[in-house]
Amino acid sequence: MSTPHRVLIIGGGFAGLSCAKELANDERFAVTLLDRQNHHLFQPLLYQVATASLSAPDIARSLRAILTRAENVSVILDEVTRIDPKGKTVYSAEKSYSYDSLVLAAGARTSYFGNDEWAKHTIGLKSLDDAAEIRSRVLSALEQAERSQDPEEQKKLMTVAIIGGGPTGVELAGAFSDLVRRALKTDFRKIDPAELRVVIIQSGDRLLKPFTEEHSAYTEERLKKLGVKVILGPRVDQVEEGRLHLNDGRWIEAHTLIWAAGVGASPLTKDFACPQDRGGRIQVYPDLSLPDYPEVFAAGDLVCLENIPGVAPAATQMGKHIGQSLLKGKRKPFKYRDKGMMAIIGKNAAIAEANGIDLKGFPAWLAWLFIHLAFLVGFRNKLSVLLSWAFNYLFDKPGARVFTTEPKEEKARTSARGSG
Amino acid sequence: MSTPHRVLIIGGGFAGLSCAKELANDERFAVTLLDRQNHHLFQPLLYQVATASLSAPDIARSLRAILTRAENVSVILDEVTRIDPKGKTVYSAEKSYSYDSLVLAAGARTSYFGNDEWAKHTIGLKSLDDAAEIRSRVLSALEQAERSQDPEEQKKLMTVAIIGGGPTGVELAGAFSDLVRRALKTDFRKIDPAELRVVIIQSGDRLLKPFTEEHSAYTEERLKKLGVKVILGPRVDQVEEGRLHLNDGRWIEAHTLIWAAGVGASPLTKDFACPQDRGGRIQVYPDLSLPDYPEVFAAGDLVCLENIPGVAPAATQMGKHIGQSLLKGKRKPFKYRDKGMMAIIGKNAAIAEANGIDLKGFPAWLAWLFIHLAFLVGFRNKLSVLLSWAFNYLFDKPGARVFTTEPKEEKARTSARGSG
Repeated sequence: MSTPHRVLIIGGGFAGLSCAKELANDERFAVTLLDRQNHHLFQPLLYQVATASLSAPDIARSLRAILTRAENVSVILDEVTRIDPKGKTVYSAEKSYSYDSLVLAAGARTSYFGNDEWAKHTIGLKSLDDAAEIRSRVLSALEQAERSQDPEEQKKLMTVAIIGGGPTGVELAGAFSDLVRRALKTDFRKIDPAELRVVIIQSGDRLLKPFTEEHSAYTEERLKKLGVKVILGPRVDQVEEGRLHLNDGRWIEAHTLIWAAGVGASPLTKDFACPQDRGGRIQVYPDLSLPDYPEVFAAGDLVCLENIPGVAPAATQMGKHIGQSLLKGKRKPFKYRDKGMMAIIGKNAAIAEANGIDLKGFPAWLAWLFIHLAFLVGFRNKLSVLLSWAFNYLFDKPGARVFTTEPKEEKARTSARGSG
Repeated sequence: MSTPHRVLIIGGGFAGLSCAKELANDERFAVTLLDRQNHHLFQPLLYQVATASLSAPDIARSLRAILTRAENVSVILDEVTRIDPKGKTVYSAEKSYSYDSLVLAAGARTSYFGNDEWAKHTIGLKSLDDAAEIRSRVLSALEQAERSQDPEEQKKLMTVAIIGGGPTGVELAGAFSDLVRRALKTDFRKIDPAELRVVIIQSGDRLLKPFTEEHSAYTEERLKKLGVKVILGPRVDQVEEGRLHLNDGRWIEAHTLIWAAGVGASPLTKDFACPQDRGGRIQVYPDLSLPDYPEVFAAGDLVCLENIPGVAPAATQMGKHIGQSLLKGKRKPFKYRDKGMMAIIGKNAAIAEANGIDLKGFPAWLAWLFIHLAFLVGFRNKLSVLLSWAFNYLFDKPGARVFTTEPKEEKARTSARGSG
């Protein structure tokens, strides 16, 4: 038997994991999957952990558990610090890993587009830690408001400002409104949680820009019905602790500032002399290999390819495509099979666009639930999420209202929050 | 209507919560329940969160959610810093709370009996944060061992030393052995998780001292079968980072050091000039009121009463007794109805002693499961725990193998970890 071909995959998200699964138990390959977390995260449901509908283990699964039967795949918990493409070696703080083929699947992280100092006043939403921090900050602000005697302070504590009107922003806004209007309704004695003010700020002229104008209008109307204040047009140009400034001159005071305005590629892409977009995403060849580095592939959110959105199905398909290329020893251009787009706005309301079919309202909401349940990894997680949703829907009782630590207000947050 | 009698309860554990429930919706009382966490914690199952069998939300429930219909009860998230018994006022960092009657139910915390500097090298088990830290430390040590090339380092990483052979120590030792021998069996490629060495150290001559000698012997034998090293006799006299010294001259090297050797009362008891034992527990009158302070009661783990163990049923009964005394305006001596004691040793093995009945092995294990499920607060938590146990038992798949942060090795741990 010849020496197996060493494939190194950086990142255990949708792209990296699907590539590893494709190569599983083929003895010609010795696969190493590096991730700095021990779990695969089902990002599409992360906003529900932030808004106390689901708990962290519902949407995360140990990478080792997923790949336990893939005997030629080693999972290593380690954080890549540098890549040397010429020496075909990847470095972490303590170790180095050589490869014959490299798959870059380290994903995206919260990006502030040059305003990195805003990171310490806002919370992004890329990891379980981020989700826990958002939940903890909003719930403990309600606790502070219940203790407070000062109406001005209470008002500020009870304001959540979400910067960014894409799917993440819309989903968070809808879910927070649901939480305070239904689940927490009778829980407080001095404040009325339904008075929590959720503000969503989008610099363009409509929410959910990738969707049709009709769906954007529907989303705006639904959010307004839920009590969300939608601000379209102005751009955020200044962020301080507990407040932000819009370029139309307004200040918005809010104890919780959530940054859902943008992501950029993992900084590992900088180690390659390849054309990149302003978010650091690599412009790959059609076969997903890197210009000048035929043994290096990239997949998922750190890839910039025309007409391919940064969504889970695209990442999964790319990872699988790379796995197939390695298995067959032949390269073909990647073709994205577009499964459509969806976004959820709150209880009983969502929008979906796929293959010419437009859905909104309850049917779209139902479709959203089933599709997300179907793609969640692991039977046990599916069951647990289904139960949580059923309880939440039938009894207005989200099960994850627990937080353990005071939010780290003092601790400067870094923007280094990618999942890869 | 006259002004309601103001009852202030410090601590939302078993004692405080049962007292609040007793007074619920009686308009003669205005009850305030103070806790520094937003949740009630089912402590008897905490070791299962530490050993990755259950996830945190399974055993914790928002205090507000539990008391949402008790309209005369306000839950306030705040940390008490000082009590002025003469002024009948309780202080936190920012606020003060006056009372007519005070119920001290702040519970116990990890105590090092004068060796407070050991706190920063060991992890106690009193809160969800403690449990997350233990899990994270053990699981990430396995990850480090998988990365390591140095057999000496691997051996140290794969050693867990538990100081204390009471129920918590025994339960942790059994559960860790189960975890590595069953659940993680095929998950690693370079190390064999079953080689994780669990050491349990007890200074007396047997484990589980409150139980019969026969049960202690059975426990020791079962743990040894699970591969646990049981050290009886010597006392720990020195603790450093990653190792501890026994007074028979031995050093034990272990990456993870768990302190399960003792608890002491919340330091709030110091504000009362009452007789206390060496753990700071208050020697109360038979009616659970404090000598010289008839309007102050104490319940649960910070109480020192002869023949009453520091277990959940005792705390619950005391809280209820105080509630009854307040409701009736009459004081009677507290009588403890002993429901017996149990401890679990691992899959299919436990011991139970109640009313002259002795159980061990599988029947005791089954009884343990049912009783703990029955007393867990909330139908939803019961269902979730039942599902987790079923999966774990049938498929050897504990669901909570996820950890999110590297353990805080550098961060000095304080001993201030009570739940009240």
